[in-house]
Amino acid sequence: MTEQNGKDVRSAILLVHCPDRKGLVSAITEFIFKNDGNIIYLDQHVDTQEKVFFMRVEWDLTNFSIPSEKIGEYFQTLIAERFGMKWSLYFSDYVQKMAIFVSKMPHCLHDILSRSQSDQWNVEVPLIISNHEDLGPVASAFGINFHVIPNVKENKAAAEKKQMELLKEYDIDFVVLARYMQILSGDFVSQYPHGIINIHHSFLPAFPGARPYHSAYERGVKIIGATSHYVTAELDAGPIIEQNVVRITHKDSVEDLIRKGRDLEKVVLSQAVWYHLKRKILVYGNRTLIFD
Amino acid sequence: MTEQNGKDVRSAILLVHCPDRKGLVSAITEFIFKNDGNIIYLDQHVDTQEKVFFMRVEWDLTNFSIPSEKIGEYFQTLIAERFGMKWSLYFSDYVQKMAIFVSKMPHCLHDILSRSQSDQWNVEVPLIISNHEDLGPVASAFGINFHVIPNVKENKAAAEKKQMELLKEYDIDFVVLARYMQILSGDFVSQYPHGIINIHHSFLPAFPGARPYHSAYERGVKIIGATSHYVTAELDAGPIIEQNVVRITHKDSVEDLIRKGRDLEKVVLSQAVWYHLKRKILVYGNRTLIFD
Amino acid sequence: MTEQNGKDVRSAILLVHCPDRKGLVSAITEFIFKNDGNIIYLDQHVDTQEKVFFMRVEWDLTNFSIPSEKIGEYFQTLIAERFGMKWSLYFSDYVQKMAIFVSKMPHCLHDILSRSQSDQWNVEVPLIISNHEDLGPVASAFGINFHVIPNVKENKAAAEKKQMELLKEYDIDFVVLARYMQILSGDFVSQYPHGIINIHHSFLPAFPGARPYHSAYERGVKIIGATSHYVTAELDAGPIIEQNVVRITHKDSVEDLIRKGRDLEKVVLSQAVWYHLKRKILVYGNRTLIFD
Amino acid sequence: MTEQNGKDVRSAILLVHCPDRKGLVSAITEFIFKNDGNIIYLDQHVDTQEKVFFMRVEWDLTNFSIPSEKIGEYFQTLIAERFGMKWSLYFSDYVQKMAIFVSKMPHCLHDILSRSQSDQWNVEVPLIISNHEDLGPVASAFGINFHVIPNVKENKAAAEKKQMELLKEYDIDFVVLARYMQILSGDFVSQYPHGIINIHHSFLPAFPGARPYHSAYERGVKIIGATSHYVTAELDAGPIIEQNVVRITHKDSVEDLIRKGRDLEKVVLSQAVWYHLKRKILVYGNRTLIFD
Repeated sequence: MTEQNGKDVRSAILLVHCPDRKGLVSAITEFIFKNDGNIIYLDQHVDTQEKVFFMRVEWDLTNFSIPSEKIGEYFQTLIAERFGMKWSLYFSDYVQKMAIFVSKMPHCLHDILSRSQSDQWNVEVPLIISNHEDLGPVASAFGINFHVIPNVKENKAAAEKKQMELLKEYDIDFVVLARYMQILSGDFVSQYPHGIINIHHSFLPAFPGARPYHSAYERGVKIIGATSHYVTAELDAGPIIEQNVVRITHKDSVEDLIRKGRDLEKVVLSQAVWYHLKRKILVYGNRTLIFD
Repeated sequence: MTEQNGKDVRSAILLVHCPDRKGLVSAITEFIFKNDGNIIYLDQHVDTQEKVFFMRVEWDLTNFSIPSEKIGEYFQTLIAERFGMKWSLYFSDYVQKMAIFVSKMPHCLHDILSRSQSDQWNVEVPLIISNHEDLGPVASAFGINFHVIPNVKENKAAAEKKQMELLKEYDIDFVVLARYMQILSGDFVSQYPHGIINIHHSFLPAFPGARPYHSAYERGVKIIGATSHYVTAELDAGPIIEQNVVRITHKDSVEDLIRKGRDLEKVVLSQAVWYHLKRKILVYGNRTLIFD
Repeated sequence: MTEQNGKDVRSAILLVHCPDRKGLVSAITEFIFKNDGNIIYLDQHVDTQEKVFFMRVEWDLTNFSIPSEKIGEYFQTLIAERFGMKWSLYFSDYVQKMAIFVSKMPHCLHDILSRSQSDQWNVEVPLIISNHEDLGPVASAFGINFHVIPNVKENKAAAEKKQMELLKEYDIDFVVLARYMQILSGDFVSQYPHGIINIHHSFLPAFPGARPYHSAYERGVKIIGATSHYVTAELDAGPIIEQNVVRITHKDSVEDLIRKGRDLEKVVLSQAVWYHLKRKILVYGNRTLIFD
Repeated sequence: MTEQNGKDVRSAILLVHCPDRKGLVSAITEFIFKNDGNIIYLDQHVDTQEKVFFMRVEWDLTNFSIPSEKIGEYFQTLIAERFGMKWSLYFSDYVQKMAIFVSKMPHCLHDILSRSQSDQWNVEVPLIISNHEDLGPVASAFGINFHVIPNVKENKAAAEKKQMELLKEYDIDFVVLARYMQILSGDFVSQYPHGIINIHHSFLPAFPGARPYHSAYERGVKIIGATSHYVTAELDAGPIIEQNVVRITHKDSVEDLIRKGRDLEKVVLSQAVWYHLKRKILVYGNRTLIFD
């Protein structure tokens, strides 16, 4: 549900892109207006270089004359086909199911779980998967199913098969890698396009891969960062959703960087998950538009 | 001119607000579309608390069928009246004339003048007014008329009268107070509603008035700021355009705060001026919407 | 314990201030050196305005020739008296006992508890006190005693008496107000000088008191903040330990400010607690020195 | 001169590093104290990983009993040799001579020159060298010698020879590359070890080399940065002095990134120059310690 003026309204969220031309905003807003929808959010962007039009529009469905299950069909027929639009349609009352993959570090998991129980996140978390036992107690403190699937090189395929079965079993919509520290296979990733969110503990594209805090220390940077992105087949190269940074000095040891970085990691990852939950992200090529 | 895809196009910029209701975006965009305008920027915002609709839309005038001098009239008749809209219309090829008021400190003046000569700012600076001689050489290095009008308490009204005459003589569109350090009378301010931009050297509303860095030091804050705002009759209380901050420590003396603050002041003031030049600011009540 | 080069060492931490004069650093460091202490941290600061000398020095006690329980006495006799020093001495292996006061909001509590269980914080949390039942489940998930003491105007003194008894009973070293939202009496505060840490949800001194996010929204600021400070008798006026800020826009409603502010609050409060735990804070007058 | 409590004092600045051991701070501060120097700044740092001790100490020379020209010799004999110290000694009343290399972009040059004329920078700028005529008027507005040395591939060695002759002729202490955009030869660089400061328009090590804003746009980062560093033989790989960042969104075109980046570049470069002027930088390996 989307909160509007203190009360929750059921709304539709439409994310659209297509080649730019005249009349796009007019066509979409008229479609909503003529059918008695009240727009509560509209943001559009034109990439003038590539001549592509992007839009996120959200409207109150209270008096909307097209039944929800027909909106997609009508929009496709009446508008999208004419302009060659690619679009996604979401409803604010749908509660997404999120699985969390963790390893041994608790800070991102804690942060996500405490938010998932607050009134700010409209999400269900039925499943946590880990390659170690360590965070089981955290999962059980929050009353969430915790499955340990060891991840050794020889059985990676088998492990991923089990993981995928669990994701299906729990009807998971998207996956969050909360410092999972394992590389997923291209096969696995392809099952959840723009549906796996990772946190990398550096300011990408600086310091991809392992031990970024050690590399940052070695290079003598004055600022460190964290990056949340959708996972793609190529390591740490997927579309960036959110980044943030913190200043460091020569007094900070690698351990200090790790400590300071943890605060970044959890805030950046949770921010990315929030954008995802709110359908504020449109992925185009390897870049994201965040309709904030 | 507005740059689009590497070449300059002549565009119209419309800033609108009115009571929120269905069909507003649709009506405005259709007005543009039907008359062969191509929208190059559109952002709207609904204040769901106060139920007010806001919009900034910019369109390419190349093939627009309504002559520029008639657009306002047509928009008023066909759209604005129906919805009770308040609006402003600007054209990107109009070069605004800016006057700068200074006192003794050069950092903001330098920053503004160097930008005004770059290709990023579409502005003319025919006039600098000061209450001291000190910055005359800077003005002459940039080839700008420099008028000294001493500002002693007894002759404040006379001084403002002279200032106002100069502003009229040079046909000034808006005024920038670049650390001018003098309080303008309500009369003076009322001549340029939302047309006088000030930089205050604190993170307002903290530390209004005189010697904010000293107050910040005394209070022991860990971050200092600067605030650019439109001047209103009430001191340091006008609509805020831009703010920024920088971290300080106990090692920073008042002098260090002043030094660090200068970097903030000039960047924050210049950013505010840029928003003003680009017609990205809509003032509503005592708040601004920045269509960034 | 203080980690040094991967292994924990038992160290002494000395915080000193006195009128500035020649030979202070030399006297202190010689005291440590002559007795076979190895300095692992030294930072000094001279307030040249007020002519006060400040220093934090930490040294490895492994081979230190003065027994720990005698260090204070020897330092007082041999050094402090000569220079009129005020000082505090701490040992890194002492585990402080922290009580947390909460009301209904869980985000700061969650953040503190998850950190208190990590290896980064050397602290014990035996007690949570609240004026509402709401966060009882969080306390029990972390296995911490949770006492509800309702706080109605008529019985404020009685409530504080009970709180104080619990603090004594649990032998509490310092108190953290994790969005407790109640004003403590001067009497109560005086029992824990520089021993009660509060988080205020604004960038102090802007917006003290109630509903700062609403005030920030009304004022139209472009940046909001959070401030952690030691509680003194005067509301929101105690020595500031840490502040941080986040940028907002006109698109952010009061609810958005509250949401974004929560991330600040928890990070700022936890940072302040960490400084306190690490004995990095020296309070002088109403300001803090943070030996970071 | 170093300002202390409102009046300028002549001070000595000593930067030291050596293998860590007991008694270092004590030995150095006693050397100063015994000879009637009053320490006005002292900061030390121990790299516990590599076991290296670093220190910056500054003392008032007013009553110092060793003549300035003998301090180095005495310190070497009495202290440095015993501990294997490497050190540099500077005097606050020495006015360094800075040359600026520019190409076509004026923003960094303007910023540096306006600061160099203020009371905050204790520096002389006798010489600007460029490979283009464009910025000649800026140089002459500030009354500084401007030499054009075209930089075409075939005559790079000849161009550098001329540059070096000018640097010698003007007795230049250090060089600032204010968006000079040319790569200096290893030979040239070796003439000014830790004496050439560059600004790179990215958050290094991300996006080294040419067109970093274009690369940042392509990668879809959410934050861009600027990096000031000492030039070494390897491109964009020298010791980092200062970095800063600014948030961007999908609405920002490459041109917007360039515009926003300019504000970073000039502030970051000027900050680095200020640290250099104040002798606050100690280079160790490929990292810097900034004694802020």
